[in-house]
Amino acid sequence: VAGFAEPIGRLIDALKLLPGIGQKSATRLAFHILKRPPEEAAALARAIQDARARVRDCDVCGNFSEGEMCPICADERRDRGAICVVEEAANLPAIERTGLYQGLYHVLGGSLSPLRGVGPEDLRVGRLVERIREGGVREVILATSPNVEGEATAVFVAGIVRPLGVRLTRIAQGLPVGSEIEFTDDMTLGKALESRREF
Amino acid sequence: VAGFAEPIGRLIDALKLLPGIGQKSATRLAFHILKRPPEEAAALARAIQDARARVRDCDVCGNFSEGEMCPICADERRDRGAICVVEEAANLPAIERTGLYQGLYHVLGGSLSPLRGVGPEDLRVGRLVERIREGGVREVILATSPNVEGEATAVFVAGIVRPLGVRLTRIAQGLPVGSEIEFTDDMTLGKALESRREF
Repeated sequence: VAGFAEPIGRLIDALKLLPGIGQKSATRLAFHILKRPPEEAAALARAIQDARARVRDCDVCGNFSEGEMCPICADERRDRGAICVVEEAANLPAIERTGLYQGLYHVLGGSLSPLRGVGPEDLRVGRLVERIREGGVREVILATSPNVEGEATAVFVAGIVRPLGVRLTRIAQGLPVGSEIEFTDDMTLGKALESRREF
Repeated sequence: VAGFAEPIGRLIDALKLLPGIGQKSATRLAFHILKRPPEEAAALARAIQDARARVRDCDVCGNFSEGEMCPICADERRDRGAICVVEEAANLPAIERTGLYQGLYHVLGGSLSPLRGVGPEDLRVGRLVERIREGGVREVILATSPNVEGEATAVFVAGIVRPLGVRLTRIAQGLPVGSEIEFTDDMTLGKALESRREF
């Protein structure tokens, strides 16, 4: 930014690498950081550094973890008979917040995308097969996103899991709660009709 | 966040202190940081730390600065006869981007707000008076925001600057470029009428 000291420009550039943060937001964040007490800036810098240095992938499910096993895999109260397959660890909080799922997870680490050069070999499916073969798994829930890449990924994982003989399910597609039929797109309404249930 | 390693929770909490960043955005930013190479996280942490440690207020105008004098005050090509008074250093980039102002600035460091407990003694006005008394200043432009606090601040600064005998101006209020009269609020339209110019 013209008229500003060089460390400010570098801070703005670093903040701009974050998702959804453009030039204006980055500038606003930088000015906020400069106006706050030095300890607050130091704490933020340390939290970033620390999290990146100390957090790794869970050896079992691929979720973010401090040790070999993430808090969910290590939690003995979780139902070991269910594995919910998600694309990214970032998808877990949404599912956890529902309070309706007590099983384990498996993080693929992405979704199939020829465009972005992500192929089957880039997804953590081998470890999923191992987990199922180790026994005790009743059901695998495919919770990839209901978009082109997520669907392709679900089909791919299903092809590998199905021969293993566990129950295979897919999260439902339909109208979002609180939405209006009038403003629902045709694809979603079509899926909602197809997936209709007894009332 | 439930199910996540503790350093992630701390990173999310630190990010939530930034303006406009709630729980969801903070979580998204944290996951992004965790997925990027460690060097990128380290660079961001260092940029935050560095900027906060190395940036101080310009002794002359109060703008963010690395040394005693900010790049604008130090720039000999700037017109030393004009001082544009703003509330915060964060307001400068917007004015600089117009490319229409070549003078200097004076950063008050806030705006009068009885509610937030900001009084006249909290604003950098003494230094502004000194700068005018040092001579060479033709015009002081009041570029505080056109809201209640900004107006009160402009009136307060005007009361102090007017006796010094320099030209005193206020940035114009009117319809934003590209807006429509039909959807303009009454106050803005009123100001636009009051400030009408020969065409």
